[in-house]
Amino acid sequence: MRVCRVVNGEDARYGLADDSVVTLISDEPFAAWEREEDVSLRTARLLAPVVPSKIVCVGINYRKHAEEMGHALPDEPVIFLKPSTAINSPGGTIQLPQPSMRVDYEGELAVVIGRRARHVRPEEAAHHILGYTCANDVTARDLQRKDGQWTRAKSFDGFSPLGPWVETDLDPSDLGIVTRLNGEVVQSGRTSDMIFDVPTLVSFISGVMTLLPGDVVLTGTPSGIGPMHSGDVVEVEIEGVGSLTNPVAPAL
Amino acid sequence: MRVCRVVNGEDARYGLADDSVVTLISDEPFAAWEREEDVSLRTARLLAPVVPSKIVCVGINYRKHAEEMGHALPDEPVIFLKPSTAINSPGGTIQLPQPSMRVDYEGELAVVIGRRARHVRPEEAAHHILGYTCANDVTARDLQRKDGQWTRAKSFDGFSPLGPWVETDLDPSDLGIVTRLNGEVVQSGRTSDMIFDVPTLVSFISGVMTLLPGDVVLTGTPSGIGPMHSGDVVEVEIEGVGSLTNPVAPAL
Repeated sequence: MRVCRVVNGEDARYGLADDSVVTLISDEPFAAWEREEDVSLRTARLLAPVVPSKIVCVGINYRKHAEEMGHALPDEPVIFLKPSTAINSPGGTIQLPQPSMRVDYEGELAVVIGRRARHVRPEEAAHHILGYTCANDVTARDLQRKDGQWTRAKSFDGFSPLGPWVETDLDPSDLGIVTRLNGEVVQSGRTSDMIFDVPTLVSFISGVMTLLPGDVVLTGTPSGIGPMHSGDVVEVEIEGVGSLTNPVAPAL
Repeated sequence: MRVCRVVNGEDARYGLADDSVVTLISDEPFAAWEREEDVSLRTARLLAPVVPSKIVCVGINYRKHAEEMGHALPDEPVIFLKPSTAINSPGGTIQLPQPSMRVDYEGELAVVIGRRARHVRPEEAAHHILGYTCANDVTARDLQRKDGQWTRAKSFDGFSPLGPWVETDLDPSDLGIVTRLNGEVVQSGRTSDMIFDVPTLVSFISGVMTLLPGDVVLTGTPSGIGPMHSGDVVEVEIEGVGSLTNPVAPAL
């Protein structure tokens, strides 16, 4: 099942997408819902598929990315947060903020929480997961290095594109993940290269903070990070999920 | 005016506190509201006075605290985030999480946003501020040092006590701020010692991420940080605001 959110008149509505149609549903996908009217997928304006209370990110979680960043392999996940104001829609413009001279893409598998999770063991994690979507953990690389703390670099408005939908029937353990810049492959990895797998991450994070329905966990980026420039188009594609595409432009 | 939130039957309600009475109000304090019934302040159960979409914190913002942490004075604010699941009420227990051997108090002045703020200049900041409350930026000092990133250390459930209310009529530029542990003064500073003052912080943060009504900015802690232990009672008192008191106990 593909859970999406679409603009419907004045409202944002959750729906279920197939190849041509979005069937709107009566409530949040975490609640009891019923199928309502169909709208065309082709003309629907997709939004980020969930509205998280928090986005919890994992810093260094692919072996090759740890190498390219000059980091030793961590013995525990290193986490940070992105604010909900950073969320961006499929197709939404990534605006390059004035204080940064280098803004990078980071294609990532995003885990969407479906049920409240607190001190969950890895073998219980799947029960708390609604599904998976594509994410771009956009990062002002120069500000990340300057600050030491990564928050500012990753928290600008629009720096968290999510979508196109949440695929609920998916094994996350060995998926291809590809980032393309203007159609050219710049990152290509598999989730099997993660240092900490999805159940381990959900378990670890739920031991720190309660995860709520709709919360999002970004699971780290493969190697191949690099800058984006005004006029570029960036695409994150994950096997079994789909493709998240965003244009890049200067901040207004 | 003192804006508070109280338990009222099954609900949480906003109200205005005076010395003996809480006058419940009909809507959020950011909206148009009317006065409704009075309840006794003495018997009211106070909650954190706002429900922020994000808590933005400033890392090193008092000169003496920079010294005790061995940090050079920053040329720009260093920011990080605490999740909304960390919020704790006045009187709520701070639970000591199992993975940490050292959990510290950090008394702080909290700014509560009243109007959406995006690229606000320092001289416009006051227009976007609802008021001020007391905060304790509880920190697992050992995990902060281990991770490098501060998020895990500061994000455990209950690590963000806020309250007792939001004082709306207050000049934040030179307020006494005192933290007491079991009645003994352990931190004592003045907001005039801040490296970046409140208008500068709101302006800087609003240039990164949009601040929404109810969002909270923690403005950094004075010198004198230290650990709390099970059975302790910690109190953060700010001149012109009031006092936020929390007991400390092991995690269940």
